[in-house]
Amino acid sequence: MDPKSPQPWRNRLHEIIYEADTPKGKVFDVVLLFFILLSVVLVALESVPSINSSYKDFFHWAEWCITILFSVEYLLRIIAVKKPWRYITSFYGIIDLLSTLPKYVAIFFTGTQSLIALRALRLLRVFRILKLTRYIGESNTLVRALVASRAKILVFMFGVLILCIIFGTIMYLIESDASGFTSIPRSIYWCIVTLTTVGYGDIAPTTNLGQFIAAIIMILGYGIIAVPTGIVTAEFADQNRNLDTNTQACPECMNDQHKDEAVFCHACGARLNHE
Amino acid sequence: MDPKSPQPWRNRLHEIIYEADTPKGKVFDVVLLFFILLSVVLVALESVPSINSSYKDFFHWAEWCITILFSVEYLLRIIAVKKPWRYITSFYGIIDLLSTLPKYVAIFFTGTQSLIALRALRLLRVFRILKLTRYIGESNTLVRALVASRAKILVFMFGVLILCIIFGTIMYLIESDASGFTSIPRSIYWCIVTLTTVGYGDIAPTTNLGQFIAAIIMILGYGIIAVPTGIVTAEFADQNRNLDTNTQACPECMNDQHKDEAVFCHACGARLNHE
Amino acid sequence: MDPKSPQPWRNRLHEIIYEADTPKGKVFDVVLLFFILLSVVLVALESVPSINSSYKDFFHWAEWCITILFSVEYLLRIIAVKKPWRYITSFYGIIDLLSTLPKYVAIFFTGTQSLIALRALRLLRVFRILKLTRYIGESNTLVRALVASRAKILVFMFGVLILCIIFGTIMYLIESDASGFTSIPRSIYWCIVTLTTVGYGDIAPTTNLGQFIAAIIMILGYGIIAVPTGIVTAEFADQNRNLDTNTQACPECMNDQHKDEAVFCHACGARLNHE
Amino acid sequence: MDPKSPQPWRNRLHEIIYEADTPKGKVFDVVLLFFILLSVVLVALESVPSINSSYKDFFHWAEWCITILFSVEYLLRIIAVKKPWRYITSFYGIIDLLSTLPKYVAIFFTGTQSLIALRALRLLRVFRILKLTRYIGESNTLVRALVASRAKILVFMFGVLILCIIFGTIMYLIESDASGFTSIPRSIYWCIVTLTTVGYGDIAPTTNLGQFIAAIIMILGYGIIAVPTGIVTAEFADQNRNLDTNTQACPECMNDQHKDEAVFCHACGARLNHE
Repeated sequence: MDPKSPQPWRNRLHEIIYEADTPKGKVFDVVLLFFILLSVVLVALESVPSINSSYKDFFHWAEWCITILFSVEYLLRIIAVKKPWRYITSFYGIIDLLSTLPKYVAIFFTGTQSLIALRALRLLRVFRILKLTRYIGESNTLVRALVASRAKILVFMFGVLILCIIFGTIMYLIESDASGFTSIPRSIYWCIVTLTTVGYGDIAPTTNLGQFIAAIIMILGYGIIAVPTGIVTAEFADQNRNLDTNTQACPECMNDQHKDEAVFCHACGARLNHE
Repeated sequence: MDPKSPQPWRNRLHEIIYEADTPKGKVFDVVLLFFILLSVVLVALESVPSINSSYKDFFHWAEWCITILFSVEYLLRIIAVKKPWRYITSFYGIIDLLSTLPKYVAIFFTGTQSLIALRALRLLRVFRILKLTRYIGESNTLVRALVASRAKILVFMFGVLILCIIFGTIMYLIESDASGFTSIPRSIYWCIVTLTTVGYGDIAPTTNLGQFIAAIIMILGYGIIAVPTGIVTAEFADQNRNLDTNTQACPECMNDQHKDEAVFCHACGARLNHE
Repeated sequence: MDPKSPQPWRNRLHEIIYEADTPKGKVFDVVLLFFILLSVVLVALESVPSINSSYKDFFHWAEWCITILFSVEYLLRIIAVKKPWRYITSFYGIIDLLSTLPKYVAIFFTGTQSLIALRALRLLRVFRILKLTRYIGESNTLVRALVASRAKILVFMFGVLILCIIFGTIMYLIESDASGFTSIPRSIYWCIVTLTTVGYGDIAPTTNLGQFIAAIIMILGYGIIAVPTGIVTAEFADQNRNLDTNTQACPECMNDQHKDEAVFCHACGARLNHE
Repeated sequence: MDPKSPQPWRNRLHEIIYEADTPKGKVFDVVLLFFILLSVVLVALESVPSINSSYKDFFHWAEWCITILFSVEYLLRIIAVKKPWRYITSFYGIIDLLSTLPKYVAIFFTGTQSLIALRALRLLRVFRILKLTRYIGESNTLVRALVASRAKILVFMFGVLILCIIFGTIMYLIESDASGFTSIPRSIYWCIVTLTTVGYGDIAPTTNLGQFIAAIIMILGYGIIAVPTGIVTAEFADQNRNLDTNTQACPECMNDQHKDEAVFCHACGARLNHE
């Protein structure tokens, strides 16, 4: 923050809106989160026919208030940042625009009104505000474990998809006369529903052979759920183990993997160098 | 237990009702548990129309017996404890009241009768009585592992909820014409049903795009079930590993929790006594 | 096997029927398993109306053949064993009787015929025959891990049941007007269906509050499936780890946890005593 | 690749088609994968009645193009390889034939057309092409963990099947009057649907006893999903732990796989060189 900057108010604005470390920034983020939650709850309640018919006017005004508030916030964000285009074309920038624009467009064109529900995407900002809280360490561990096992999980999901396409196609050949399996994409959809053990029952095999293959798919799905679980668990176990021991080696015997609170080497009794 | 207490019978009552270490306290807890189970079974059976119509009188008397029994127990609990209000306003105190009051109120007002089913909440007392048994160690391990991973699980459930709100809103926009997705809250409900792989099938997407997004939600739900599993498993594995550290204390500094292979104390460098 | 036993044929019979280590015993067990499987397949096929109507005579004769065969086996088992009552009153003895008796009784009384399907219980004998195969080690590991975590799993299942009773009762109060929740036992059944993420959809909440609580139960069920998984996994991991390192300590530095193939201590270089 | 081979073009063809290490081989594999994906998408879209009726001609020609392309590839594969019969009778050889033949046969006989959907099986070739990518390490870990736990998983699935047969038979006896449980095989199918927590709801118990046993099956299924998970997770954890052993070889005996903290070689007792 250069005090000789020509626009100190802009710097302060940037501090409040984009930074979460200063007290004012924290307050701004919490207030923003409150209004995002409020807007999501309002949109959700408005979609319930019985509630909407009773409080039509209230929803009308409340939504305009929030739309204007979010519009102001959007404009302030553009003003405060040095490279506005970077913000506007960023993921959050597009979401922020989408959460206000449909309301204005709906004045001229009907039908775009319902797109305002996309405001729910603003909830993703919560993950940024989460950084404020004491849960930051926990969520970091979660994210790190997921990132570390990302490649394995992608290979697994890819394999599951191939399996679903193959089994879905086979089921289409077997069950094509039955009511549910009207096309291969729908058969693949059914196969995903079955393999993931969701099992709606809107499409279900009725022939003997179809039920036999469905049983195989189910047992397969029941068994291979172990794979992502195994991947992530092994990653978590790794991270827990690494947290317990530090990487510093004993100056005498080179033994590492001492406990964090260790003062002396547990193998040769020499004093450890502590930072 | 001061023998010179002005009310020794009250102390003895407290010992019987609130403590589970003395023989009499154990007997009281087991008898109480029996009557709680009996009352839950009675309420459950009474709710079955065919059984209720045949044994209406029996249920009537049995319920009054149990209600009076529980009322006496409630009064004794108030008498026995030194700070009655603390018990009355405690969680168990409110449940205890709720399990007797509706019966009395039902004499004057109809309709409150069914609230007697809240008696089932008294079953939570089982967890206290569990402490009596040889399973205490096991349940402690369970509870400790869950407590240790509480923060991680909360962050995870919070993320799942955000996901469900966002996907539920999107599905409402896509599927609003179909029968099931009548409002955003209902769409979010469907999303939870799908993501947790429950899959009732009372609400199910019918459009192609809806089924495509549903398939993504399912595979997501199938994959991220690995996260809580990984969290809890790593915690259990940790607790099992802590069993690997031996309980022997250092002869110099009394520090325990050395690794099994440790030769020297990791806190003061003294040689450990090995068996 | 005393050669001077008064009934050497009885000893040999016992060897063939009850022991699985001798060649003849192995042959007997495999032949028996084949006939058990055959009988189960026959009973299953007979229950299919379309197949039964076409091959009624074949099933009639095949079933009598197998019944007589199993009866002969049952009598031989009684003769061969020294304490017949112990066998007759044992779990397998009762199952063996139940798999033949209904057929004879059905000559005089109709209606008992279908009980012959209990023959499927004889499949449990497979687990004994499994001991013959190279899978014995694997199934032992499985069984050992399950036995070691038995107490924890029991506590967990007990907790799940209590949860289901409480939530089932609450849902009965909320949803009693809806079609599915006709009694508390049925509500508890629904709660188990939901918590275990099975989700038939034959009973499903329709009120807003009911769906809200159902969502909580689902997320709970989705989360606490981690608990048995964590228990069993930690047990498996323990057993795998123990297999890798032997418990023998180094004669010089007392370090244990050497790898199985280790010849020298990895901490001080002394030669290990190998058995 | 012997340069003096009488048919150098055949060697080069073999290099392009069967090997994935050379630049040309890589290009061929990627192009082939593209056409396999295209053919699967075409077959899937063609099965959708509304799309098929609009673009009937396009699908007709596109399919003939791909069929001819695949036929040429099939012939080239036969020419390029030294032992053609070995390829023709191999798993991939039969799939490759099945993905072209039905189209030709359909000229003379109607009805075989739909078998062209078996082309989806060619997607299995993806797993071979996966070797090209940076994911090879990840998929190897996955495969190795699954192979290592294969025997345990087989024993488990075998046990699950026995359980399903027994419970299915029992449910047939209890629920035979209800609509869904019309035969034992169908009851076993229902039992698999329930135990794997899929739960379609097309067959669901309606009697009290049936629902009680169904509840037991569900809790069982909810609990024993822990077993495959535990097996695979322990295997993954093992493989991650093996990464803890460093790759440095002993200067004396070349033995690697020492523990990270090892100071002396555990095979010959020589001091290890530490970085």
